[in-house]
Amino acid sequence: MRRLITLSLLLAAPLAWSAPPTPAQSTKYRHEIMEALGGHMGALAMIAKGESDRTGDVPMHANAIADLSKTVGGLFPEGTGTGVAGLESSSKPEIWSQKTEFAAAVTKFQTAATALAEAAKTNDAAKVKAAMGGVGQSCGGCHDSFKVKDEH
Amino acid sequence: MRRLITLSLLLAAPLAWSAPPTPAQSTKYRHEIMEALGGHMGALAMIAKGESDRTGDVPMHANAIADLSKTVGGLFPEGTGTGVAGLESSSKPEIWSQKTEFAAAVTKFQTAATALAEAAKTNDAAKVKAAMGGVGQSCGGCHDSFKVKDEH
Repeated sequence: MRRLITLSLLLAAPLAWSAPPTPAQSTKYRHEIMEALGGHMGALAMIAKGESDRTGDVPMHANAIADLSKTVGGLFPEGTGTGVAGLESSSKPEIWSQKTEFAAAVTKFQTAATALAEAAKTNDAAKVKAAMGGVGQSCGGCHDSFKVKDEH
Repeated sequence: MRRLITLSLLLAAPLAWSAPPTPAQSTKYRHEIMEALGGHMGALAMIAKGESDRTGDVPMHANAIADLSKTVGGLFPEGTGTGVAGLESSSKPEIWSQKTEFAAAVTKFQTAATALAEAAKTNDAAKVKAAMGGVGQSCGGCHDSFKVKDEH
């Protein structure tokens, strides 16, 4: 009996934390992801610009950015944009009215982030800087089209 | 000749971005790392509390936290704390006057973060939550002793 209870607890555990999120919760989670992305990108940019000598951290940041990029497509459920009551969001309605364009922007980011992780393996500053430029452009392009400008 | 130039450029590249940082730059880099940590921890806490159903992201966040924890010991060069002119820092002088205690706090964080990454592999919510508690305590313990309270 004891073993059965233990087993059922173990089986139940992964489900126990899988409650469906509210729009406010989805927005907050998205914000945490963007904060993590911002930290890794900011740190990497400092290394690329010669403002930090922590070149050993490059692969770690690049891998984290590539991993985080894979989550982005799933972070924008319907009803989690600007103008929704009770939400702090700078996501423009175009995310949902121009789904094809938004998906393309997300894919562009993921492709650029994957290329950055590959470049980071080479320990070649020029390649990493070039790949970072690609990631920066994909971030900026998506933010220009799909994010309200006065927030960040 | 052309080949020689190309070769020398390639060899020079990894060194080209390794300028020694100023105290302000070291402080900014540290802030970027803490922002990344905050994003990953915040996202993971939401999953643990059932506020997000993105349980598939758990290993990614846990691995990033473990990787980031390994950088922390090197992020506090002398002269990058509160009260230094031109710096925005909430690092208490005790970081440098109580080096043994600070090193122990950093090690505690790294040990807890490694345990979290191990727990994340199990996909067992209870184990991940327990390991997260350990990481949270190590963050809080270090911040209590070595970080000015009115900032975060």
